[in-house]
Amino acid sequence: MKSFRKELWFHVPSRRAFINITPEVEKALAESSIREGLCLVNAMHITASVFINDDEGGLQHDYEKWLEGLAPHEPVRQYRHNDTGENNADAHLKRQVMGREVVMAVTEGRLDFGPWEQIFYGEFDGRRKKRVLIKIIGE
Amino acid sequence: MKSFRKELWFHVPSRRAFINITPEVEKALAESSIREGLCLVNAMHITASVFINDDEGGLQHDYEKWLEGLAPHEPVRQYRHNDTGENNADAHLKRQVMGREVVMAVTEGRLDFGPWEQIFYGEFDGRRKKRVLIKIIGE
Amino acid sequence: MKSFRKELWFHVPSRRAFINITPEVEKALAESSIREGLCLVNAMHITASVFINDDEGGLQHDYEKWLEGLAPHEPVRQYRHNDTGENNADAHLKRQVMGREVVMAVTEGRLDFGPWEQIFYGEFDGRRKKRVLIKIIGE
Repeated sequence: MKSFRKELWFHVPSRRAFINITPEVEKALAESSIREGLCLVNAMHITASVFINDDEGGLQHDYEKWLEGLAPHEPVRQYRHNDTGENNADAHLKRQVMGREVVMAVTEGRLDFGPWEQIFYGEFDGRRKKRVLIKIIGE
Repeated sequence: MKSFRKELWFHVPSRRAFINITPEVEKALAESSIREGLCLVNAMHITASVFINDDEGGLQHDYEKWLEGLAPHEPVRQYRHNDTGENNADAHLKRQVMGREVVMAVTEGRLDFGPWEQIFYGEFDGRRKKRVLIKIIGE
Repeated sequence: MKSFRKELWFHVPSRRAFINITPEVEKALAESSIREGLCLVNAMHITASVFINDDEGGLQHDYEKWLEGLAPHEPVRQYRHNDTGENNADAHLKRQVMGREVVMAVTEGRLDFGPWEQIFYGEFDGRRKKRVLIKIIGE
């Protein structure tokens, strides 16, 4: 069994953003030389997500608006977590809806994807350096 | 390390449905001859889910109603994604709540499940052919 | 390839609770002697979650309040699942928001975590014995 590990770093200038990281994950898979196995990609921070969906700008707008409705940033005083001096409680909630991680099949050296699957980093509390972990195991 | 891959195909006649796919996943596991490892089952489409919960008709009705409340299909104009000519933006949102994939332990050749765990395909934009991927790795 | 399996048992005296299980998962990893691989931790019951977030009491209060808003326990008659004699339909819904499982990278014999990642058992229908499964594969 082989294993491969790589970190991706982000410094998103806004509070929230969605970034397509599929090319970086494909590059890591090529570097790993793994042909059959599983590929885990997870946010290493608890106010960010990794998820798979469509690379369509309108949909990203819809996600942004929908998540803000489900877990509004304002008023920040509504969240007890923000009594610690933070103002990012909403980001911890939004990340649970979108998920921490994805696990993907690796088949014949490629991400075994359906026609529209793309991997996204979802940032909900940016403006500082944060990381994503790629771990691939297989043969 | 062994690996095994299989696709399941669906053509759901309605827009939305929940289908218990546990027997198909158990069949794939038997075909794989893998005794110890991990089994990934994921939707290959971004308007569908694979999740684990109870096979109880009342609960499926509750999920349907609850998801429609969290991410209503109508009015379709409320979603910018639907400006592309689609009317399935709500399906992209519902799928995030229910999840893309499940990862299950394989122990002594069986899905290592609690007493009520059953695997479901959740369709949120049906009436066309769509796929689920099963990937099993182990020994 | 090595594999390792362990169950954790819980008997939460209240209906709902969040319990940090990171030390128990680290202990299982040490027992496994696996240095590189993947670690799956999942609820074996369909009214409970395993998720990764921050060990901060205010945030746990926020999760409790937020989930109760998204999927209220009362009135129990609003859910068709509860016609079966259960009163836990809301727990099945809450568990979908928080997730069934987490998959973590194992690197150099340790959980490959970001600075604040902690693993939680989320109980949404306690007052009876329930289990979590840990499955680790690798070398």
